[in-house]
Amino acid sequence: MLNYRKDLDAMPSYDGVEKDYRIKVNANESTLGLPPLVEERVLNRLGCVSFNRYPNEEYYSLVEQIARNFSVAPEQVLLGSGSSEIIEKIFHAFGGAGHKIVYPQPSFSMYKIYAKAAEAEGVPFDLDEKFDLDVDAFIKTVRESGASLAVVCNPNNPTGNALTLAQVEEIAKSIDCAFLLDEAYVEFYGRSAFALVKTYPNLIVARTFSKAYGLAGARVGYMLAAADVTRMIGKTFMPYHLNTLSLAAADIVYQMRDEFVPRIQMAVAERQRLSERLKKLAGVEVFPSQTNFVLIRLERAAELTEYLESLEIGVRFFSPNAAGLKNCLRISVGTRMENDEVFAAVKNFVEGR
Amino acid sequence: MLNYRKDLDAMPSYDGVEKDYRIKVNANESTLGLPPLVEERVLNRLGCVSFNRYPNEEYYSLVEQIARNFSVAPEQVLLGSGSSEIIEKIFHAFGGAGHKIVYPQPSFSMYKIYAKAAEAEGVPFDLDEKFDLDVDAFIKTVRESGASLAVVCNPNNPTGNALTLAQVEEIAKSIDCAFLLDEAYVEFYGRSAFALVKTYPNLIVARTFSKAYGLAGARVGYMLAAADVTRMIGKTFMPYHLNTLSLAAADIVYQMRDEFVPRIQMAVAERQRLSERLKKLAGVEVFPSQTNFVLIRLERAAELTEYLESLEIGVRFFSPNAAGLKNCLRISVGTRMENDEVFAAVKNFVEGR
Repeated sequence: MLNYRKDLDAMPSYDGVEKDYRIKVNANESTLGLPPLVEERVLNRLGCVSFNRYPNEEYYSLVEQIARNFSVAPEQVLLGSGSSEIIEKIFHAFGGAGHKIVYPQPSFSMYKIYAKAAEAEGVPFDLDEKFDLDVDAFIKTVRESGASLAVVCNPNNPTGNALTLAQVEEIAKSIDCAFLLDEAYVEFYGRSAFALVKTYPNLIVARTFSKAYGLAGARVGYMLAAADVTRMIGKTFMPYHLNTLSLAAADIVYQMRDEFVPRIQMAVAERQRLSERLKKLAGVEVFPSQTNFVLIRLERAAELTEYLESLEIGVRFFSPNAAGLKNCLRISVGTRMENDEVFAAVKNFVEGR
Repeated sequence: MLNYRKDLDAMPSYDGVEKDYRIKVNANESTLGLPPLVEERVLNRLGCVSFNRYPNEEYYSLVEQIARNFSVAPEQVLLGSGSSEIIEKIFHAFGGAGHKIVYPQPSFSMYKIYAKAAEAEGVPFDLDEKFDLDVDAFIKTVRESGASLAVVCNPNNPTGNALTLAQVEEIAKSIDCAFLLDEAYVEFYGRSAFALVKTYPNLIVARTFSKAYGLAGARVGYMLAAADVTRMIGKTFMPYHLNTLSLAAADIVYQMRDEFVPRIQMAVAERQRLSERLKKLAGVEVFPSQTNFVLIRLERAAELTEYLESLEIGVRFFSPNAAGLKNCLRISVGTRMENDEVFAAVKNFVEGR
């Protein structure tokens, strides 16, 4: 018997499953590939990459570009392999025995796993029945638990709703511990709290290229925080954790991010349209969304998921032990045609087939 | 004051520095880019990648290819972001309070850091004055320390020498704990111990695409072990830790690995030639190497490094607190022309200027 790390065997795994669907609206990805002009420039850039050299200036080039855009110092920016790695490392940096990490529930299912991996005590904070976060109660929980880290996903995945910037600021100013704001979906909401990083030295904002910028395959994310916070979190990253290809792709995408604005607008418009149509179906509860997905609840959600699967449509169904998400389905926004087909299928199922 | 993980501030950083040199022989990279035919196919493949989708079948495609090549089950293969991530995660899996990890010294400088990051006690085992590893003494240290993990880098970085396969097997059979064999440079040696994985359930072999396969920029490595060992180590990897671009590039490179054989042969021949020439210089000790680099020792190593820097030649000099490496320089093998120029510069320095 090998002598593994304590409790390693009990580590839970991520419950997301990737499959090839005809209509893939299960993972909140951008449904379209890169805009043709962007893809062309990315591929040209990849043709100039030194495959044989360890990543070097590509990291700093992207850091400087991001810093310039947010008017912060490059020392305030860290890159990761998706915001996933950023979040994992932040949990690690504030984790360890005796440390507590407060996160909302239901929210991104990895928070629980990252807390466990960091050997911290995860403290889930329940959202109310409308999935709203009671800001005062959240602050109270963070303070009274003596947490080292508080986490909010804004807008929240998988519920879709968002706190106002005033609410985010209220949390930042009312707690003393580190405050991670996961803004994976913020481009669809349009109200980032990044500017608050200058005022609140405990605030860390995490962003990603995986959603609005259509680069989930490249795994690139970043965080903004005070320089002394990035210095400490930087210690948890191993050398060369990011690769040249992904960095080069993200560098071009970031340069050309205006090209994504029409797509973001389209996703927002389609989210509205899909939500409105779904609301008219009897027995289907539709939660308000500020993201590129819509969460619905209906009694026969498991059955509907199966029906959609039979049509090769992939949506995200939540396992019965995902707290608060009983009978919920998350549908990512696709193209107009995809959304029409998904809606028609849901309607067909609900209205009795 | 934010409440960081215990001892995080004391985490040491990797001491390697990447710079743009005219002749870059400091990082044991392949000095050449990808073979033109391979690069063309890699770029074609990158043109077919779904940037917007999370990595999916690309991971399994490469795993299956590797498993087929080594005649093991796909469940015995794990991929990482370079063998760096593989090693980091193995240290984590066998780390934690009260766990000890034995590794040779001098060897890959990250072992010490990975042990610290894993919150394990690092137990360095000193190589002898010729940098040879006393196998019996090593086994004794591993057993008597009650280590959870023993590590050997074979051939060893940065010393260049190698254990025989019989010696590796002797270690594997004589210790009960996990045994990580880091074969980052094994293609230049030609004697991999991967087949021993079938016999010794405690053996884990780590390999990389970064050296012989010229893909340092893509950050892809892999490990082979018994299926129950990979299952446990797999728990330490976060979902989507590898990106589609790197996986696609490595997939093509692995398919076309025969294209790299002439380059590996050239590196070996050039290593021999460079070693022989350096040996003839007065006051320069040259250590025998089975890798794509040569370690030398001379009194004025620091001064020589500066002189080479002034010629825009980058070599690896070791900090004075790197145990056992006083006055040592590591020179990666470049092209014949690069090696000639490096040799001429060293000769010029040694013979007076």
